[in-house]
Formats: sequence, structure tokens, C-alpha cells
Amino acid sequence: MADTHSLEALVQALRKLPGVGVKSASRMAFHLLQHDRPGAMLLSQALQQAATNIRHCSLCHTFTENEVCATCLDPQRDHSKLCVVETPADQAAVERTSAYRGLYFVLMGKLSPLDGIGPNEIGLAKLFERATRGDVQEVILATNFTAEGEATAHVIGEALKARGLRVTRLARGVPAGSELEYVDLGTIAHAFVDRR
Amino acid sequence: MADTHSLEALVQALRKLPGVGVKSASRMAFHLLQHDRPGAMLLSQALQQAATNIRHCSLCHTFTENEVCATCLDPQRDHSKLCVVETPADQAAVERTSAYRGLYFVLMGKLSPLDGIGPNEIGLAKLFERATRGDVQEVILATNFTAEGEATAHVIGEALKARGLRVTRLARGVPAGSELEYVDLGTIAHAFVDRR
Ligand SMILES: [Zn+2]
Ligand SMILES: [Zn+2]
Repeated sequence: MADTHSLEALVQALRKLPGVGVKSASRMAFHLLQHDRPGAMLLSQALQQAATNIRHCSLCHTFTENEVCATCLDPQRDHSKLCVVETPADQAAVERTSAYRGLYFVLMGKLSPLDGIGPNEIGLAKLFERATRGDVQEVILATNFTAEGEATAHVIGEALKARGLRVTRLARGVPAGSELEYVDLGTIAHAFVDRR
Repeated sequence: MADTHSLEALVQALRKLPGVGVKSASRMAFHLLQHDRPGAMLLSQALQQAATNIRHCSLCHTFTENEVCATCLDPQRDHSKLCVVETPADQAAVERTSAYRGLYFVLMGKLSPLDGIGPNEIGLAKLFERATRGDVQEVILATNFTAEGEATAHVIGEALKARGLRVTRLARGVPAGSELEYVDLGTIAHAFVDRR
């Protein structure tokens, strides 16, 4: 209907969200327009602000609003250790354990050849450059313990060992097949101690 | 972290969407910022446009960008029949059956005393005014066949009958306990023919 164009545009735009089909999108649009217009305006502004301000840290690739993120700039951190994770959510999970005080490299993905995600897409060249600058003495691979996460760890590990770096992997205290984001803190902390 | 303020604000704002918890909101934010910034900007604009432009039809209460919606203005419609539905999604489901060519009144909710939703919240006074203007000869109650939808139909039906109107209810071809939006078209069409 011509007189509900902006409603239909909203439903279509909500489907850009992962896991949201046309029924969910319709319900979300109805909820916002009928019960929470301030929430709709808030979300509109938050999307615009985040898409404009959020960039990638030039050192570790995580999301930040600055050239270099607060973690990379923190002098209290152990700059000789670099922990490789798939996403900022995984990084946050590791942070919550308080078991690790080194730096990070956030892949922002994982190797997934079937989906066309190869070494270039997850910035492996950048990781190799970062890891071989001289300050890093140990790279701890904390990719997820899924098939793709293990393959990613394997590829990175072999490449970094070939460059003469010490490479460790989180211990398998983390249950196989699970994703870090959903693992309890104690398990992750234990896996840090037992890294191999 | 101070340097990811707009990311955290986005995650909080995404939680305004119904059915979205903190994990889903984080995944949505990551997806938009990492893989679909044009989608984020599109959604931002769609939210702003819809929240600004969408209002309620002064005759039937449904969403429209004008004072009166296209359906209410359509001279091809049978203006002697008024079908009462809970939401625009239910109205759309009825429209898809092509079994009904009259007008609508969209409650934008249902009676739900436990949630504090009474006759005022769903605009019953407006419905009574609309139904008694003189052109309406039959009011067809097409609220959902849930406990709350049935109670809503009962309250509206009694009030309109007391005002001398002919009131019918969709036949129970619609399975009890289900919501119109999810019922197959044939069942809804049949229920229209058998309305009682
Ligand atoms: Zn950084
Ligand atoms: Zn209307």
C-alpha cells in the first residue's frame, strides 16, 4: 500500500538483522511504532553513530572509536603475550575471566573456505606483521574449539612457528564443539593455565 | 570501555526490539558493523522515517502516512461492513484471503486486564463511534481465537448489540488457541463464509 511505504521499508530493513525473518520483522516494527517510538528513535541514532564512529584498532583489529584501542594502549598489560580470538565477544569472554593480562589480536572471523573466507578476509598478513614486530614472545591461540576454529588455529600456529615464534593453544578444558562466548568463566580460566 | 561507547549504546538500543536479549543484540551489532554497514545505515534511516511518518488512520486506527488510510478511502469497498481485528498483521492476513471486501477497525491490541490494557487503551470508544455513524450495518469480530481475543470479541459484541448493531463472529473454522497471522488462508476464508 502506498500510504504505508515507510512501514514496509522498516520491515525490509529489519530483515537485515541476522536471524530476523519477515514475521519477526513485522512484529518488531509493530512493537516499535505502537509501543516504543522513543526506542525506535534511540535505535536509529545508535545505528548511525556506531556505523559512523566504530572502526578497527590498527594494532589488534578489534572495534574501537580511536586509531588504537584502549587495551593495546594499556601500559599495565603484558606486551609480550598476544592472544588470538575470533571476535570481540570472545575477547570480552576472556577478559571476564581475569586469567589473562596480555594483548589481543581479533580475527573478526575464522577461516571458512566453503564460505569464501580465506587468510586475506581475516587479516592473517596483519597478524603475522603484528606478531613479528619484536615485542611479542608468545602467541596464544584462543579461537573457538569448533572445526573451523581448530583449522584456523592450526593454520596460524604453523605459520607463526615457521617465523620462529612460541605458539600455544588454550588447553582442552574447554569442551570440544563449543563456542567461547557460552563457556563458563572457570573453564576458560583453567584452560588458560593449562595452555599447551 | 570508553573507546567503544557507541558500540555499547548500539547493543543496548537493539535490546529495545522484542525478543532480543544481550547475546542476540551483540551478535546483531557485530554482524552490522563487520559485514553490513550499509544495512545499518538503511535501518537507521528506515526507523527514523517510520517513527516520523507513520500515524494512525483517523477512521480505522491502522498504520498510515495520511489522515485517512487507503483502505478507508477506497470507494470499491463495501462500506456497510466493518471487520474488527487486533493488529495490522491480522488485517493483512484477512486481506490475503480475498474473502472480504468491507472496511476494518484495527484495535492495535486486545483487552488484557492483567497487563493493564482496558477498553481505553484499545480505543473502544472510537470503535463504538465509528460503528454507529450510520453507514455500518454489520460488524464482524475477527479478533484472535485466544482467551484474550475471545474476551475482547465478547465485550465488543455485547456493547455493539446494545447499540442495536448486527454483530457477527468469524466461524470457528479457525483452530482454537491459534493466532490469525499464522492460520492458512483457506481456513480464514472458510471462517468468513461461516461467520455467525
Ligand atoms: Zn587494539
Ligand atoms: Zn483507515
